[in-house]
Amino acid sequence: MHRLVDSVFIKNFDNAILRQKKDSAIIDIGGKTLAFTTDSYVVKPIFFPGGDIGSLAVFGTVNDLSVCGARPLYLSLGLIIEEGLSGDLLRDIVDSISKAARVSGVKVVTGDTKVVEKGSCDKIFISTSGIGEVYYKGLAADSIEPGDAVIISASIGEHAVSVLSKREGIDFNTKVKSDSRPLYGMIRDMLKASSGVKFMRDPTRGGLATTLNEIVKDMPFGIEIREEAVPVKESVRGACELLGFDPMYLACEGVFVAIVDKKDVKRVLRTIRKDRNGRMSSQIGVVTGYAKGKVSLKTSSGGQRLMDMLTGEQLPRIC
Amino acid sequence: MHRLVDSVFIKNFDNAILRQKKDSAIIDIGGKTLAFTTDSYVVKPIFFPGGDIGSLAVFGTVNDLSVCGARPLYLSLGLIIEEGLSGDLLRDIVDSISKAARVSGVKVVTGDTKVVEKGSCDKIFISTSGIGEVYYKGLAADSIEPGDAVIISASIGEHAVSVLSKREGIDFNTKVKSDSRPLYGMIRDMLKASSGVKFMRDPTRGGLATTLNEIVKDMPFGIEIREEAVPVKESVRGACELLGFDPMYLACEGVFVAIVDKKDVKRVLRTIRKDRNGRMSSQIGVVTGYAKGKVSLKTSSGGQRLMDMLTGEQLPRIC
Repeated sequence: MHRLVDSVFIKNFDNAILRQKKDSAIIDIGGKTLAFTTDSYVVKPIFFPGGDIGSLAVFGTVNDLSVCGARPLYLSLGLIIEEGLSGDLLRDIVDSISKAARVSGVKVVTGDTKVVEKGSCDKIFISTSGIGEVYYKGLAADSIEPGDAVIISASIGEHAVSVLSKREGIDFNTKVKSDSRPLYGMIRDMLKASSGVKFMRDPTRGGLATTLNEIVKDMPFGIEIREEAVPVKESVRGACELLGFDPMYLACEGVFVAIVDKKDVKRVLRTIRKDRNGRMSSQIGVVTGYAKGKVSLKTSSGGQRLMDMLTGEQLPRIC
Repeated sequence: MHRLVDSVFIKNFDNAILRQKKDSAIIDIGGKTLAFTTDSYVVKPIFFPGGDIGSLAVFGTVNDLSVCGARPLYLSLGLIIEEGLSGDLLRDIVDSISKAARVSGVKVVTGDTKVVEKGSCDKIFISTSGIGEVYYKGLAADSIEPGDAVIISASIGEHAVSVLSKREGIDFNTKVKSDSRPLYGMIRDMLKASSGVKFMRDPTRGGLATTLNEIVKDMPFGIEIREEAVPVKESVRGACELLGFDPMYLACEGVFVAIVDKKDVKRVLRTIRKDRNGRMSSQIGVVTGYAKGKVSLKTSSGGQRLMDMLTGEQLPRIC
């Protein structure tokens, strides 16, 4: 299904803006450079430890703008609601959207709701689009060079494990909370402190491995990751062992990956670590001139293996 | 359900931009005035005479921008797809989106797809958002005055009857085709020819009656419509008589209502009628200083009655 969707889309909408590899489209309107992005949220269950479909939708859109060097400004909101959804539930979700928008400093300025018959959707789906003003224009995948550092802002996999544990009713020893949160403040501080940040993405669906693969695809460089350097909380590691998942493929919703000029690594990490959500940030790898278009992993046991892109989804309805 | 949704939304997101009564939010980014809009499409069936969910989504968004005096520029596309939807169907829809975008002169620059399990959505839902550049800044509901003319650009109700006839398998004597089409060109020509256009909306969900009620709500004027003057094709009238519908409440997807300074009515109609989709345009009523906040209908039989806002939807999943 995913391959089908991809092939249909690429054929029809292959334009320069879609090819930027970014989480938002960078568009120009009369001299103003804006970022524009959209996502549909179908997460199941709609409430999970650390968030819900409403806050997830807002933060997800805000983050897609933030990693493009844009200040998030305006959101739109499209709700598809199953007839009979309880009023309390709807109120809780809308309250959560409203609070998340306030926390992120964005305004919900336009919206639409559709109600469909019972059985025609699963409780509620939310589509959000966002507009931001680009304030840092140096981000471009083709400015990445061998020797650049790969940095991650926080530990990975918490969003996916949180949703999954709630959905499957699995109680891990330690409760894993979703990392769903806005990244704008941390990114703005980093970009103020350093002009050596060359590219950013947030590793949502498909996790870190998929995002890195998307970055190197068809490019004249590869990426080599040191497994030990990738921060993974014990609780997430435990859940992965139990369920047979690889944390590298688990969705994060409050983490970014940055490709940074090696001269700026210390400065960047020092800045990120001042933010309480950036304390576990670290350099996890380097950009290589060999193994072009590929992501490889130096494992803790001293081995090395390719880290492929997943085809399809490891976990459906995770966001 | 609709009352619930409205009350929850108004409580949470009542801001100046949402209160503009327009089909798009008018936002300002560093001196540029933009229109920003979103809609979710859940129409059933997904193919109907004269269109499909894909073209409907594009034209609907393009029209919401156009009636705000904006030139539609960029679209985002969020698809929620039911696992197992046929590849041919998906290709047809995406082809239709692509063609509709080309016809409308907009670029699809960002998108997202989610696949949900069978039974968790009904085939496909599409959310589109659009950004346009505002080129005509004189549109404001509070510039409307008693004596202004109410103009409609075309005959009403064809979209709703087309969808309904396909959905219910009813074959009217004459096939009614949806009026789903882009309005930008016609509106641009009109706004070039006249500076007397004060406000516009497109009467989609809830039809002409609902749109007019939204315009007069809480305002110091009313609207009086002459039933005879409202263009309704024979085929639509026949379908309405058969099914017990009032054409005034049926959704249109390629029609606009404009409130125009009475001095400019002739000039506006002359311009619109040059467009092949504006040939049936006419003045259907006037803005009144009495009956404030209300829409009244002078019936063909000489009577007069209030034309209320529908509570809820006359027809679910019409767009």
